[in-house]
Amino acid sequence: MLAYGELTAFERLASDARLAPTITDKTALATMAAAEFEHYRQLHEHLLGMGVDPERAMAPFVGPLDEFHDSTDPNDWLEGVIKAYVGDGLATDFYREVSAFVTDGPTRELVLHVLADAGQAEFAVSRVREAVAQDPTVAGRLALWARRLVGEALIQAQKVAVERDALTELVVVGSGGDLAGIARLLTRLTDNHTARMQALGLQP
Amino acid sequence: MLAYGELTAFERLASDARLAPTITDKTALATMAAAEFEHYRQLHEHLLGMGVDPERAMAPFVGPLDEFHDSTDPNDWLEGVIKAYVGDGLATDFYREVSAFVTDGPTRELVLHVLADAGQAEFAVSRVREAVAQDPTVAGRLALWARRLVGEALIQAQKVAVERDALTELVVVGSGGDLAGIARLLTRLTDNHTARMQALGLQP
Repeated sequence: MLAYGELTAFERLASDARLAPTITDKTALATMAAAEFEHYRQLHEHLLGMGVDPERAMAPFVGPLDEFHDSTDPNDWLEGVIKAYVGDGLATDFYREVSAFVTDGPTRELVLHVLADAGQAEFAVSRVREAVAQDPTVAGRLALWARRLVGEALIQAQKVAVERDALTELVVVGSGGDLAGIARLLTRLTDNHTARMQALGLQP
Repeated sequence: MLAYGELTAFERLASDARLAPTITDKTALATMAAAEFEHYRQLHEHLLGMGVDPERAMAPFVGPLDEFHDSTDPNDWLEGVIKAYVGDGLATDFYREVSAFVTDGPTRELVLHVLADAGQAEFAVSRVREAVAQDPTVAGRLALWARRLVGEALIQAQKVAVERDALTELVVVGSGGDLAGIARLLTRLTDNHTARMQALGLQP
């Protein structure tokens, strides 16, 4: 799931770079996209090294991840920047939670390695704060956009949970095996999302 | 021009990877895109090293290169594959011709280095030949598509020639300073294009 997530993140970030107002901005987003591809390459290699067919391993996640991106195609540059930060941040938090339950050492280390921030945070925060300072009326629209990203991510996560017993079990067992554990996990994800929205200046 | 060409090639190849029918195909196109980005990074660094502002140096070529890509957005996977091979091939031939006239050694070497085939040729030839073998009727449509790529490239090249005296002079003086030299250059470009169309099986 993470491998296909990196591959689609690469593809979408690179496409969204088209919306950049300057070559410098385009370069910044393209650099993040290239970093995601390098992560994908490493995960792909790791799967091969484990004797796993990457195509087959990624197949179940193609539908949900493609649908997430299709339903959250940015309408402009700022929406693209927010998606790169808020959407990626949410996914990263989720994968990081799951990685804690992965028992294979090298796999867990690689997962944590590829989850390192590729520079989205600082870049997005500066660009969005600048834009809102210039025109405070965009803040409302961008806050709604970020909510939509979360909503669409939850819809797809739900689908994956229903269809992928192994992943669901990993999360449920890992988080304590009870509803309270799941609730705590969701609280942590929500808190991190709120922190990102505050960093962007889109939430008090 | 080459730097912005690599940046847009990256962006468009990565977007076109969305059209891939399998993850393996998607990975192949994404790998090429990542190679183009690495070329862009090297050219960007080289410009900085020469004391040139990359943003300013690329600015005059943004319009024509963006227009080329906007007017040749592939409608399906095979059109994307052909664009990656035929469009990139044409551009590469042109840059290679120009590089022969560049007097600065390190610049010429870097240009030749980034022009190395990122794997497009073999990949495109195998995919297009397979598709035509399965359904010979697609050959006509794909041949027309390749002609359109050449036409749109010429339109944009013409615009650049009119607006960029320095580049035009480099080509004119480099190719002998007369019309015969230009004609020979065009013949070489056309011959290489024909060879690619024959390799794809789209031209006898």
